[in-house]
Amino acid sequence: MKTLNVPLGDRSYPIFIGNALFAATGALDAYIPGDEVLVVTNETVAPLYLDGLLSSLTRSKVDSLILPDGEKYKTLGTVELIYNELLAKRHSRETTLIALGGGVVGDMTGFAAATYQRGVNFLQVPTTLLSQVDSSVGGKTGVNHPLGKNMVGAFYQPLAVFADMATLATLPDREYRAGVAEVVKYGLIGDLEFYQWIIENTESINARSEAALEEMVYRSCQNKGDVVARDERESNVRATLNLGHTFGHAIEAVEGYRGLLHGEAVAVGMFMAAEMSRRLGWLTSDEVSALGRLLESLGLPTSVPAAMTPENFLNAMALDKKVSKGTVRLVLLKSVGQAVITGDYPEEILRETISVFCNQAVVF
Amino acid sequence: MKTLNVPLGDRSYPIFIGNALFAATGALDAYIPGDEVLVVTNETVAPLYLDGLLSSLTRSKVDSLILPDGEKYKTLGTVELIYNELLAKRHSRETTLIALGGGVVGDMTGFAAATYQRGVNFLQVPTTLLSQVDSSVGGKTGVNHPLGKNMVGAFYQPLAVFADMATLATLPDREYRAGVAEVVKYGLIGDLEFYQWIIENTESINARSEAALEEMVYRSCQNKGDVVARDERESNVRATLNLGHTFGHAIEAVEGYRGLLHGEAVAVGMFMAAEMSRRLGWLTSDEVSALGRLLESLGLPTSVPAAMTPENFLNAMALDKKVSKGTVRLVLLKSVGQAVITGDYPEEILRETISVFCNQAVVF
Repeated sequence: MKTLNVPLGDRSYPIFIGNALFAATGALDAYIPGDEVLVVTNETVAPLYLDGLLSSLTRSKVDSLILPDGEKYKTLGTVELIYNELLAKRHSRETTLIALGGGVVGDMTGFAAATYQRGVNFLQVPTTLLSQVDSSVGGKTGVNHPLGKNMVGAFYQPLAVFADMATLATLPDREYRAGVAEVVKYGLIGDLEFYQWIIENTESINARSEAALEEMVYRSCQNKGDVVARDERESNVRATLNLGHTFGHAIEAVEGYRGLLHGEAVAVGMFMAAEMSRRLGWLTSDEVSALGRLLESLGLPTSVPAAMTPENFLNAMALDKKVSKGTVRLVLLKSVGQAVITGDYPEEILRETISVFCNQAVVF
Repeated sequence: MKTLNVPLGDRSYPIFIGNALFAATGALDAYIPGDEVLVVTNETVAPLYLDGLLSSLTRSKVDSLILPDGEKYKTLGTVELIYNELLAKRHSRETTLIALGGGVVGDMTGFAAATYQRGVNFLQVPTTLLSQVDSSVGGKTGVNHPLGKNMVGAFYQPLAVFADMATLATLPDREYRAGVAEVVKYGLIGDLEFYQWIIENTESINARSEAALEEMVYRSCQNKGDVVARDERESNVRATLNLGHTFGHAIEAVEGYRGLLHGEAVAVGMFMAAEMSRRLGWLTSDEVSALGRLLESLGLPTSVPAAMTPENFLNAMALDKKVSKGTVRLVLLKSVGQAVITGDYPEEILRETISVFCNQAVVF
């Protein structure tokens, strides 16, 4: 087992990375301050891990709530189901919410914890690679709005994160690969050594070897924790974590969150950001091609879905949170391993990049 | 004009107390960091003050939203109207929300500000006495749930508060008096000198003299700011601000928020807390009687509505946020001017107090 600390002053918390973590009686208990617990999970994860988690808890009042599964349920209406359960079962402000599931469960449970009685305790037990390397770390919580993704939410840190490699064994292939996209992101934006490790280890990553899983999750959480500690509320450097996300969110929005998975959309978005960075003279053709090949070898998409047009793409981007004073601020790559956040680029280059991706496959 | 500072480190903010404050061009502008503003108000306040406020703002993008008026609209559904407006008008995370109205508008606008894109800027322009002396100061935001008042919310501080005495001139009598109840509370819990000032000035308070208004608002905000600075997230001393509120919330809940106004319910609740404190041997009969006469002279109720029974009263209290580990923690009075928070009392005394109030008028 490996342990990392996210250093945020009096809101610092540990991330435990290992095997069969939460099956051990007492592991989570040590991070539950009161006598009351509500475990929130979904209908896919519940049959696999809920009983194991519940039997490891020794608190006197343990309730659980099973939500429907899917990004389309990441709404205020679903969060209200959590409030309803907490109130129906009379949970006090000393209760602890445990999110058992992927990013959707974690984001909604975190938001419920941030807002139930103005804030209660919260633990993350992420069961997908994407949530282990990304959404469970850093305190972003929230839900989607019909007019935009993650438009309602709060910054709210958990008391601890338990990333159990055992849960990745049951993850469907497509979801696993979508998580790997965010892993590649950490290399691209700030950790060249890790990026090279990924290139050299695509086979063991694809085979989900235990050593590769632990290394991926550990290095990703380390990178994310460092960035979050420097800029918790995303005033500056934290925004680099959005590499590929502005492009990716536009794709997800146009597809009504029913097309590419988030990580897949981010993979396409990172490739678009790399191509735009090349057009700005920052990356070489070889570097962009190498990224394309890497994504392909990891089973990730590099071209935009057929539904995308230059018009709907740009329109969807204008609603993105990264819009500051009318300019679309983008995360781009000054070099492989070094991201920048900028709204200072010729708009023509952005339009050309989008146009090329919407009108033809990009060859690499 | 008087100015107070609420000292909360990097979240400190000023409270301006005076006449025709926001009509002066530039007064609010100085506290709006970006170019975008959404003013949120309600259908009662809008005809009186919205135009004046809007014409004082010089920002390039100024929108306004008029909500229905009333505590029954203090719901997540109404907060969604604010999100919808912000997204439809494409407000970025640099926008500033201005709450123009009473506590309901302030609590909902504050919660929308706390959660829109995980947090945007926020100004309070309270137009009722209750919101000027209480809800606009201290950062409590949120909405009601069918199973409990203020069960969903966040701690979120404004950038500034503008308490304009001119707006109190149009306040209906009952609402004004309900605000005075919270003023009395500050005296009872921690400011004996202020409590005596209130007793000596009931006439000018009832006449709404400008000097009395300014003094009431200033001293109340000073008391509240001090308490909030010592305990922002209500771990201990801040809970004394809930004197009368646990009893009061139970009354409001049983009446479905359609009976007594919040401040009126708090007045009854304070009187119940005083009577219970007497039964615990902490207050004299004379002190309880004097409080009863004071509340009466200020036009406030001292008996519980007919709908209340010992059973529904206790049941409603058990759902209150102040419940800690099964015990109903109450704010009581060790003496006039000194509140304590305690769950350590004979339950019989609580039951007797509630029973006496439900079954007969308390004579003073």
